[in-house]
Amino acid sequence: MDRDTRRVKENYTMLCDFYELTMGQGYFNCGKRDTITYFDVFFRDIPDGGGYAVCAGLDQLIDYIEDLAFTEEDIECLRRKRLFSEDFLSYLKTFRFTGDIWAVPEGTPIFPGEPIMTVRAPAIEAQFIETFVLLSLNHQSLIATKTSRIVGAAEGRPVSEFGSRRAQGTAGAILGARAAYIAGCSSSACTIAEERYGVPTGGTMAHSWVQMFDTEFEAFDTYCSIYPDSATLLIDTYNVLKSGVPNAIKAFKKHNIRRGGVRIDSGDVAYLSRRVRSMLDEAGLYDIKIIVSNSLDEHIIRDLIQQGAKIDAFGVGERLITSRSSPVFGGVYKLVAVEKEDGTILPKIKISENIEKITNPHYKKLYRLYDRTTGKAIADQITLYSETIDDTKSLEIFDPHFTWKKKTVENFIARELLVPVFKNGVCVYPRYSVEEIRSYCKKEMDTLWEEVKRLDNPHRYYVDLSHELWELKHRLLNENSQS
Amino acid sequence: MDRDTRRVKENYTMLCDFYELTMGQGYFNCGKRDTITYFDVFFRDIPDGGGYAVCAGLDQLIDYIEDLAFTEEDIECLRRKRLFSEDFLSYLKTFRFTGDIWAVPEGTPIFPGEPIMTVRAPAIEAQFIETFVLLSLNHQSLIATKTSRIVGAAEGRPVSEFGSRRAQGTAGAILGARAAYIAGCSSSACTIAEERYGVPTGGTMAHSWVQMFDTEFEAFDTYCSIYPDSATLLIDTYNVLKSGVPNAIKAFKKHNIRRGGVRIDSGDVAYLSRRVRSMLDEAGLYDIKIIVSNSLDEHIIRDLIQQGAKIDAFGVGERLITSRSSPVFGGVYKLVAVEKEDGTILPKIKISENIEKITNPHYKKLYRLYDRTTGKAIADQITLYSETIDDTKSLEIFDPHFTWKKKTVENFIARELLVPVFKNGVCVYPRYSVEEIRSYCKKEMDTLWEEVKRLDNPHRYYVDLSHELWELKHRLLNENSQS
Repeated sequence: MDRDTRRVKENYTMLCDFYELTMGQGYFNCGKRDTITYFDVFFRDIPDGGGYAVCAGLDQLIDYIEDLAFTEEDIECLRRKRLFSEDFLSYLKTFRFTGDIWAVPEGTPIFPGEPIMTVRAPAIEAQFIETFVLLSLNHQSLIATKTSRIVGAAEGRPVSEFGSRRAQGTAGAILGARAAYIAGCSSSACTIAEERYGVPTGGTMAHSWVQMFDTEFEAFDTYCSIYPDSATLLIDTYNVLKSGVPNAIKAFKKHNIRRGGVRIDSGDVAYLSRRVRSMLDEAGLYDIKIIVSNSLDEHIIRDLIQQGAKIDAFGVGERLITSRSSPVFGGVYKLVAVEKEDGTILPKIKISENIEKITNPHYKKLYRLYDRTTGKAIADQITLYSETIDDTKSLEIFDPHFTWKKKTVENFIARELLVPVFKNGVCVYPRYSVEEIRSYCKKEMDTLWEEVKRLDNPHRYYVDLSHELWELKHRLLNENSQS
Repeated sequence: MDRDTRRVKENYTMLCDFYELTMGQGYFNCGKRDTITYFDVFFRDIPDGGGYAVCAGLDQLIDYIEDLAFTEEDIECLRRKRLFSEDFLSYLKTFRFTGDIWAVPEGTPIFPGEPIMTVRAPAIEAQFIETFVLLSLNHQSLIATKTSRIVGAAEGRPVSEFGSRRAQGTAGAILGARAAYIAGCSSSACTIAEERYGVPTGGTMAHSWVQMFDTEFEAFDTYCSIYPDSATLLIDTYNVLKSGVPNAIKAFKKHNIRRGGVRIDSGDVAYLSRRVRSMLDEAGLYDIKIIVSNSLDEHIIRDLIQQGAKIDAFGVGERLITSRSSPVFGGVYKLVAVEKEDGTILPKIKISENIEKITNPHYKKLYRLYDRTTGKAIADQITLYSETIDDTKSLEIFDPHFTWKKKTVENFIARELLVPVFKNGVCVYPRYSVEEIRSYCKKEMDTLWEEVKRLDNPHRYYVDLSHELWELKHRLLNENSQS
């Protein structure tokens, strides 16, 4: 058969909000197409009321930017709208991203209000990429953040992601598996995530396997004979304690399997897991693991552990892959500066009745301050692009809302978090493997105090503004409120 | 530049849960690979506690099945797992779907417990497609269902989808826009959804457009000069009533625009919309529409209308595209029958402590009964495949849980809802346009009583079993509980 089974990346140039095109033609027509603009990506609220988020989605964004180009079919589709001039459509034919991008590396813990990406580009280009930038960062940061909470609750026990069937679309499944692995899942059931990204995948049997045989034992026996080294038997098709465990023990013994597992997918798993553990131990099967997988999330996992459930590993589905309790990561993309023709950078602020919706103006840097002794993250500081934090000296930081709350930081290392990703339209950022990003994420998570990582009512991590930035912001606010 | 900008579909053969492959090799090795199995897709709970769901996602599923094929790279990826025999890997090289599929057409209102798809295929094949079948139907049915609620609440006012930036991945955005249009959205901001599926798209400006100009009026003036026929001005960048509306009125008048719009994206829109309407009317701009778009969902839209807000159209983002208040559609895929070698169909039941988790066994049909006079849907009835409802006679239906609750239905039309989609691996189903599916959806929604469509505490639509199916189910339940 001659089916086209090539694995070709889809092109997402047309995955833009339509207003990016109408504004684009607007800038094109009114002489602002080459005006250099600065946009920041930041978010305001942490999902699930947590104390931190985990940044992800940059790698797919790089693909998008590199592949950005309209085809003839795209142009024809736009022409049919009878809204765009032939001049503008001709311009789109050679449209590419030519600007600069700085971003926080994937796997970094991030906090509300700080820039996690800055785009510097001609107005049309910077505006055009808005939708995909947000979509990619919002989606994967959402899943990485949720996963981090779940993995934290599991206290070292492996957590496997298996939510593909409930994911919101194919990318939800595949890139969700990627984000979950970055943030600490041990594996995924999503096979294509291994092929594309190297996420380790695994899985054994569904209830239908058991139902396909005349008896539960025959199903287990057959499975163990085929997979003597990796048999995890699903023991709740009929009755966990009356048939599932006895049949599993019989099959494990028959095939001399010592290092397999049993999975419980329903019922009161706190109770069942303890009983199953006893039964396995009584049979001498001390190394058979118990895996549990029924509507789990960080709260249920924490409760199960507190109840003394005997669980060696967790499988988590829909509540991770959709971040069910908090399924939106609210990253936004805001204009923060415009370059004049002489190269002067003019800061822009978006004011709002809603205090937390007011943006931090201007082209900026983001520093994380780590204690030299403990290695722990002390605070983040946002500065103007022209400032540099000298970490050989002490630094006074202050709360941007309650400026009398001050703290002097000493003996610290200042690290710039926004690193160059594109320079003049060319990617200058290394393409890290998921394994590397995962290790980095783990290392950075270790720099956060436990109080910040708490599931409920976490300590609010400090994100402060430099004196210069604070003063600029307040000057612009005063100017605006007078106008 | 020689970038590959071809628009090639991705192949999702490897988007399977890994256990489908381990079970596949299991069936392959133990002689069950050609055993014909029947699997049903059904769901148990309606999102948001609603009275109905809307089925969607079939079209993408057809693509998936038609494109199903492993490449050499896929096989190599699996080989590296050191879990699969060369025999099995060879078998996968020519693996195709050769079975039959019946499904409820996209856009049909569906109800818990009824089969919305039945797959009849050799065990390996039927098991293998599980993940993608569920992913596609779950995702698009979720968004179609949510949209239907939102559009219903808007009482005829157009609702535009613009959530791409908060969607869970690219397919979440693109196919979410498709599902939203099917279920009644008037348009989307997602440009690629128009190119791929013919979903009408639109959009005008962001706050950044306004910020790019020295004054708000200059921003509006410039926009109106470029788009005199479709200017919708965003009036809340500075102050809706003090600057936004006066500047919009000035710009509309200067360009003699009578049929544009203004958009309010923040603040107390119930209050603001009334004031904006008065100001526009006083200026003689009666046909300028007011569009509102701030964190809307079905409940807020209903409340705004009840408060007398003067809103002509709604833009809905994250709460639609992620179905934020209920982001999981819980469709499942369960074995319901196995064919013996002589062709006899052996029904299978999945029992559970949890009553609603017990499956309806056997190869079945699904009928919807419509009143011949009113055209309204009266009830659905699930029957064995061998049964036929004769709608020239009266029919007694009964509640499957409380069998004394009976009703005799007369003067009705019985329509089979599960229609052939694949026959021996070949698609036999027409590929309808989104426009056709949308019209069909609207027509079918009109057959539901308002009580079923109510947002809260809706009437529970009857989904009953035929006498024969009920008796089979209870016989199997009794047999199982004795074993």
